[in-house]
This record gives sequence, C-alpha cells and structure tokens, in this order.
Amino acid sequence: MNILFIMYDQLRFDYMGCAGHPHLKTPNFDRLAARGLRFTQAHVQSPICGASRMCFYTGRYASSHGAQWNGFPLRVGERTLGDHLRDAGMSCHLIGKTHMVADAEGMARLGLSPDSVIGARQAECGFDPVVRDDGLWGVGPAGAYDRKRSPYNDFLKSRGYPSDNPWADFANAGIVDGQMASGWFTANADKPANIREEDSETPWLTDRCLEFLDTARGPWCAHLSYIKPHWPYIVPAPYHALYGVEHVLPPVRSPAERDDPHPVFRAFMESEIARTFARDEVRAKVIPAYMGLIRQCDDQLGRILDRLDTTGESANTMIVLTSDHGDYLGDHWLGEKDLFHQQSVKVPLIIVDPRPAADGTRGTTCDALVESIDLAATFIETAGAEVPRHIVEGRSLLPFLHGETPETWREVTISEYDYSTTPMRKSLDVAIPDARLFMVFDGRWKLIHAEGGFRPMLFDLQSDPQEVQDRGADPGCAQQVARLRAHLHRWALRSAQRVTRSDAQIEAAQGPEGRVGILRHVFDPGDAPEDFTAAYRGPAPADYTGG
Amino acid sequence: MNILFIMYDQLRFDYMGCAGHPHLKTPNFDRLAARGLRFTQAHVQSPICGASRMCFYTGRYASSHGAQWNGFPLRVGERTLGDHLRDAGMSCHLIGKTHMVADAEGMARLGLSPDSVIGARQAECGFDPVVRDDGLWGVGPAGAYDRKRSPYNDFLKSRGYPSDNPWADFANAGIVDGQMASGWFTANADKPANIREEDSETPWLTDRCLEFLDTARGPWCAHLSYIKPHWPYIVPAPYHALYGVEHVLPPVRSPAERDDPHPVFRAFMESEIARTFARDEVRAKVIPAYMGLIRQCDDQLGRILDRLDTTGESANTMIVLTSDHGDYLGDHWLGEKDLFHQQSVKVPLIIVDPRPAADGTRGTTCDALVESIDLAATFIETAGAEVPRHIVEGRSLLPFLHGETPETWREVTISEYDYSTTPMRKSLDVAIPDARLFMVFDGRWKLIHAEGGFRPMLFDLQSDPQEVQDRGADPGCAQQVARLRAHLHRWALRSAQRVTRSDAQIEAAQGPEGRVGILRHVFDPGDAPEDFTAAYRGPAPADYTGG
Repeated sequence: MNILFIMYDQLRFDYMGCAGHPHLKTPNFDRLAARGLRFTQAHVQSPICGASRMCFYTGRYASSHGAQWNGFPLRVGERTLGDHLRDAGMSCHLIGKTHMVADAEGMARLGLSPDSVIGARQAECGFDPVVRDDGLWGVGPAGAYDRKRSPYNDFLKSRGYPSDNPWADFANAGIVDGQMASGWFTANADKPANIREEDSETPWLTDRCLEFLDTARGPWCAHLSYIKPHWPYIVPAPYHALYGVEHVLPPVRSPAERDDPHPVFRAFMESEIARTFARDEVRAKVIPAYMGLIRQCDDQLGRILDRLDTTGESANTMIVLTSDHGDYLGDHWLGEKDLFHQQSVKVPLIIVDPRPAADGTRGTTCDALVESIDLAATFIETAGAEVPRHIVEGRSLLPFLHGETPETWREVTISEYDYSTTPMRKSLDVAIPDARLFMVFDGRWKLIHAEGGFRPMLFDLQSDPQEVQDRGADPGCAQQVARLRAHLHRWALRSAQRVTRSDAQIEAAQGPEGRVGILRHVFDPGDAPEDFTAAYRGPAPADYTGG
Repeated sequence: MNILFIMYDQLRFDYMGCAGHPHLKTPNFDRLAARGLRFTQAHVQSPICGASRMCFYTGRYASSHGAQWNGFPLRVGERTLGDHLRDAGMSCHLIGKTHMVADAEGMARLGLSPDSVIGARQAECGFDPVVRDDGLWGVGPAGAYDRKRSPYNDFLKSRGYPSDNPWADFANAGIVDGQMASGWFTANADKPANIREEDSETPWLTDRCLEFLDTARGPWCAHLSYIKPHWPYIVPAPYHALYGVEHVLPPVRSPAERDDPHPVFRAFMESEIARTFARDEVRAKVIPAYMGLIRQCDDQLGRILDRLDTTGESANTMIVLTSDHGDYLGDHWLGEKDLFHQQSVKVPLIIVDPRPAADGTRGTTCDALVESIDLAATFIETAGAEVPRHIVEGRSLLPFLHGETPETWREVTISEYDYSTTPMRKSLDVAIPDARLFMVFDGRWKLIHAEGGFRPMLFDLQSDPQEVQDRGADPGCAQQVARLRAHLHRWALRSAQRVTRSDAQIEAAQGPEGRVGILRHVFDPGDAPEDFTAAYRGPAPADYTGG
C-alpha cells in the first residue's frame, strides 16, 4: 500500500459538492467521496496553519508538541509521521507546503547540520522533500515570508515571467489598464491572475506530484500539500469567472453575536481582518474567487486520479483529502480562521482505502468525532506498524473504513489556539502564557475555555446549529459547562510526554513480583528465594584486613 | 560565583539537627543552616529518584519532561541545567549520581554518538561528569543495575578488596562468623560494613569532590550527588554503633489509616516493602543505620566546608543541600517513598548565598512553598542569566535569600507519581496511562488526585499534622477538594512545551499593528499605507503574453 495524503490549505468543510454546497461543483472531490468514506465531524487540533500541520505531522495535540503558532519551531527530536513510517518500512515524501520552521537553536545545540540527511529531516518536519514551497512569497515590508527560496518562483522565472517575484506580480496579481491589481487587495479578487493557468500554483504542484508518481517505488507516503485555496484570493482564467455574486451564500451570522459578546470573541470581531470580512463587498469579491480556486484544485485532482487509474495504482494507493483548517469568509463577523466555529475548526476529510475490507463503506459518511491527529495513527497502521500510543495521541480510523465500530471512541474532540502573537492579546491585556483557548466538543455541545480568567463560551449545535447563541453565561447550562470542563481537565492531565517508554515496555518490565524481591527490603535471608539471593549468601570473601 | 549543589539520596527533611531531630546530630548540616536560609516547605516534583532528579536537572515538572519513573530515558534534546548554565558562561559538572538513562533511540535517530561531547552531555543529563556512579551495583538476578560500570567498584578493587563486586561484598555487607551479612537483608543493618570507613561510598565521593575543588576554574556549578543515606541500610564502623533502638522515634502512623483506606493507599500499604517496614524489628535495625549513614554524610560535608573555608572559596561559592525525596521508614505503614506524605515528598533544603545581599537571612528559615524545580531557576539567575520561563517552570529563590518578598508566589505546590511500573498498578487493575497520582498542597490542605476513577484523598495538616485522617470522602471538605482540583486543572493546562519560542520573542515579533496590514486583508489599496504596499502598486511588469 501507498498513501497519497492530500492537503488543501484553508479549504472549508462545506465547500465541496459532496458536502452539499448548492453552487460549487467538485466532481473529483465527489469522485473520492464515492470511492471512500467521508467523515462529517473531522476537526483540526488547532485552527491555524502551522500549529494544525504540526499536529497532523506528529499525531500529537498542539500543547503536546509545543509548536502552537505559525513560525514556532517544532522542537528538535520530536517524532514525526516520517520517523514512524520509515521505521515501518515506508518512505515519506513532501510535495508542497508544511509551514515547518526548524528548531535552529536545538539543532545547533545537538550539532545537526541542515545539510545532512538527519538534519534535513529535522528541518523538514520528518519529510524527505520532493519539493517544498510554502507560498506567500514577498510580502515586502511585512517581511515574514521574504527570506526563503521558492521553487515555484524559480519555475515561473524559468518560464519567462519577467519579475524578481513573479509569485506576487503574476500568479497573485491581475492587471488592469497596465496597472498591477494585486491579489493582496481583496478588491482585486474578481480579476483573473496575470498568468497562464497551467503555470499557476495548483497545476504546478500537481505536475510535481505526477513526476513523483512516475518514478516512486513503494511503499511510500506522499504528502501532496497545496497552498490553495488559501489567500491571496485570486485565480487565473477561466476560474475567475466561473462563479459570481449570485453564488455567494448569505453569511452565517447574527446581530445577537455582537450583543455583549465574550471578550475574546469581541476582540477578534474587532480585528482589522474581521472588519474587512464583515463587509458585503468583500465577500462578494472574495467568495467567487475562493470557489474558483477550489474548482481549480478539483480539476487538478482529476488529473491525479486519472493517472492513478490509468496506471492501476489506484488499487494499492490510499488517498486522503483534507485541509489544515477552514475559512470564516465573513461568517460570524470574522475572516480567516483562529476561533472554533465550524467554519474554522471543522475540515473536509475523505479517505479512500482501496482494499476489499473497505468495500462496505464506499460512498458513505461517518459521523464519529474524528481529530486530525488520527491520520498519523491511520497511516502508521496502514504501513503495518502498531501505533505507538505513548507518542501518537490520535487513533487509527481504519476500523471505520472497514465498517467496524471501535469498542470505545473519544467522547469529545479537543482543539487549541494560542493567540499570544496576535494584536488581540494586547487589546485584551492578557499575559502571554494565558493567551490560549481550548475547544471541547461532544458533537452537540461546544465549550470554549479561555485561560486568563474569562467566562466560558458555550454553543448547543442541536438547537443552534449556526452557533450564534453563546450560552456560556446561561445558568441553565452550568451543568453542560461543568461536564465539558471535566473532559478538558482529564485531557489536560493526560500523559503526553512519556515518549521514551512505551506501554509495552512498561508491561514487559514487570517481571513476577518475587523476582524483584531483593529490592523489596527483605528482612531475613530466610524470607527470600535462595536462588534469587545466592549472591548475598555464603562465606564472606574476606574481611578488609584480609582476615 | 560558583555553585556547589549537594544532593543526598533519600534524606528525610526531619533527619537533621537543625530541623529538630531529637537524637541525630548533624553539626555540618547545621553549620550550613546557620550560614544560609533553610526552607521548611520544599517539596520534590516526584517522590522517586529518577523522576525527581530529572525535575531538578531540567527545572521542569515530571509530566513536562516525561521521564516519570526510574529508568525512563530523558528525551533527546530536552534542555538541562547544564545547557542553561553553559549558555550563561558557567560550566556544569557531575560528581556522583544522576539516575539518568539516555534516550538511546532518540540519539541514534539524530545520529548522536555517546562518545562525542554533545552526545555525552545528552547521555549524562547535560552534565560534564567528573565521575558518575549511581550505586546499587550487582543486584544479581534482579538484574536492574548489573549492566553498568562502577568507578566506585573499580576504586575498591584498586584498593585490594578481593571480589568481583566489592560494592556488594564489602561496602554493603557485614561479616558474621565468616559468613556474608549482606545489607540487602535489613536484618543485617546493625552490622558494621566490612570496609575501611575511608573507603566507603560517602568518603570516596567526597574525595572526588575535593580533587575537583583543587583544580576547578570558575565560574562552575558542581553537582555533588551522594548515593547515601539511600539503602542498603548498612554503614561502616564507627557509624554503625552511634545510634541504637533507643534513638528510633515512634512511627508516625495510626490504625485509622488501615480502616477503609483509599484503594491506592491500600495497595501501597499491602506491598512487600510496606509489610517489611511495618515491622518494629525492621525499624529497630534500619533506622539506627540510616542515622549512622546521615552522620557519616555530615562528617564528610565538614571536610568540604573546611576546605572551602581554608581556601577562601566559601566567599564565592553558593552551597545548596537537598535530597531527591524522603524515606517513610515505616511511617504511615509504608517503606521507601512514592506517595505524598511529608516523609516522602518533603525534602531538606538549605541554600547558602555568600553575598552580602543574603546577610539578612542567614540562620533563618523560610516557609514559602518551594519546589525542587526552583533550584534550576535559582542557579540560572545566579549565573547571571535570565530564567527562560517558557522552558524552566521553577522560579528563582534568590529573592527569599536576599530578604525580599516576591510580589506573587505560587499558591500550591504540585507533585506527581507514575506507578505504572509497580505491582500496585496490576493489583489495582489500572490502565498504564491512568496509573498516575498528583498532589496539590497549599501549605495546609493536601489533595491527592488519582487518575483512573478513584475518589480523592485529602489531608488537613493544620488539624491533622501527622496526615493520618483522610478527609477525601468527607462531604464537609467538598469545597476544599474542588478548590485544590481547580488549581490542579489550571496547572494541567499550563503551557509547558512551547520550548522553542520565548515570551520575549513573542513580544518582539509583535510590531505595530499597521506594519502587518497587508496580511490583514485590505480591501482597497487606498486603505493601506502606501509605503508599506509599494511592491503591490504601480505599473504591472507585463502580462504573461509579454503585452
């Protein structure tokens, strides 16, 4: 078996045909859904690119691996999916984005050179990169993405785009009356990007994947990780024109949300991003472009599926489709992600297992509470190894794929968000270590706990599926709050760092109790088995005077 | 400033003259107490050698570093006291015991050879070893300590003791009628060890320390880590005869403790160790030997203090005396350590800071709730560096030494114990990840929380200073239980793994909000500062057709 682990960036769970979007057509996403199992309650462990991805790539909660925000390095030595899979005899490749930042201090302290195989794997989050490109090149004075090298930009230059940064000037900008219409300004989202469609980011990465498939020797896992439909919201023709304002769904929001909101929610609603996305004109421009980007992703997926079908590799390739988080798109008066409404924390997840054991679930859906960390466990088990539960906190989804019901399953799903780096931390005047949020969701009730002394937020998705009524201060809900808090506290006390000693090792270390009797403070030699204590009986070798 | 960080193994907080023991004389411990500050509420983060030491050596809670029991390797890359001190320009040396087990899997994965300087530090818990010896050699078929090499055993052989394992056959055995009277059998605890006193473990390690002092170039931190008064309880003449049964204090225990005890407490009371120490004849033999071992430790400390005074080094050497945990010695019907009664979890702690700033506190005591992880923070600050609070969870004790009252201090102290490897886990039929205990102590009330669905234990040390009345099931104490549990839960949610990104880095990364405006989804170019977005304005370089 091989594993093609496809991730889109910022793809909402409900922007797929198979998930019920009334206008967006995604025939190839749907083709996967028809061949596999679609999970309707899949949540990420942190609704922000970097942290979420580190959870996918380690199988561990964000507070377990510690890389809790974009740019926080993953600590040196943290075991990754690649480490686990290679131990199981499966290679592990990267095609695209990871958002990984290497722990340069830790690597230097351990003498690891990024040029060595070991160092490169440490620096690349355990993957062997076919190509790595995180996108978002050349933010200019904002600077955050200026310092890296982009294979995609190199490609564009080789294709003759006349610019130092064709990613910004062509792939993510239109042209109007000879003036640049940059995708960084959402007003330009309706323009076609000034690039040949086949040179844009999604087809480019798809080509890299097809090249990989040409030469790959299994068993392999390939993480095909697209940068889109993440912003800048701009897409080349013909995709820029496939959808219009008539396809923009009304925002999921209510004036009630702005009436005495939770302080943290208020701070996020007051952010510049949120204020932008609260404007109808922004949604009218952005959402059709977002849908066009998704449609392009879908078309490119079709190329890959066609290739796998043609070569027969579909029969021995598990295919996974998911995203690192969603996109508010103006819902709940918010933009981007970060908080825990479904639009942000819930992700699409489709898994196609070609083996006959999965025949019974093809084309069906599964409503179990699934976490993004479950994929690492699923892949490790698919590679034929046992999931090291003292390290990997997720659980294999193979039982669901194979039509089985696990004897026990999690009662709640947990997600976390560290907002210490954001302006909201300052406007809320919260200490850095307290700028953390936790979601506990049982499938109906969703609790959001904020450190720093705030009241809880609570939503009942049964009576309020749109999550617009915060019941956190409702005395009638105190028991639900207490119940979900108890889940949170039990989770918080979990054993997450005993990563050097497995349960099996602990079990094996326990010999029969009698065998360790000598360490049990035996009083008299007669109280202990003679063969066990032979070394401590009998004639003394001599006394120290030689007597 | 240099730091002499002295640790005894299994030294109870109340077995010192300065702590009020009515019979045991410890003039040199007391000499330190007269020169420094004695902390009366110092607790270890886990009452078991290995886990406790890893807390001391990392400044982190046991569940943060994950090495939660003896022999659980400290994960590769975990930052240690030695790493922090070297960064601050202070060398960090080991003389004696650490109980460190290297993360061989992690080191191999990162290509670290134990022979390299970096590899050796990883393997030796961040110390540069002058000499390392963990004691307990040659347990025979029990096996646990057979596989290592003992510099102390090598020394004994060089001194002519005729045995393959003179540690077992001489240093820890007496001789009666030509027969070995092994210290492994507590019935032999009253015999003199069959060894010249100056060759026994404590003087041997003291000699190594004196040699180190002869040549050390500061600033240095030396961890002088004795194996005694840890069992085997046997000591050479004349120390074996200094104390007798008349000096054995009555056990701190009550029949009430055996009346419907908490299931976990019951399981420990039923262990072989506990049954041994519940016998008066065992206490009568063991405790005088334990006191003799301590008295020998005290005499050897005197040699070091004399040397430092003679050379004048006392004036620039911080001296710390502590232990990794206590010893039940039959109190509470228990032997050894493991649980959270004061006899086990509370430790002696004396700090002598020779600087004038500490003059005001010399010879006094401090009742603040102090944790063993505070020492790492204290040492880092003493070395002149700022405590990296995103890594080191303890707090510097220098304010207390300098007569200051910190503005805020912890309200509770936390300790943890993982009993997954013990027979008690099996007798209680608890899953391995649930075999964990947590203590929350506020100076008066002590809550013990056991994972796995057990009721809490609770003691009120004000009305019940001996901790013999478990109030955990008393409805009148429900509020205390809830209050301490809330502390535990807040602690459990702490940010402990964001070790690659400091608070200062997070603070510095937050530029003025306007600077990151381009990432804030600006709608119209007119909404953003022009200089900031210059790269996204102006004439398009060309369209892709070259037009």
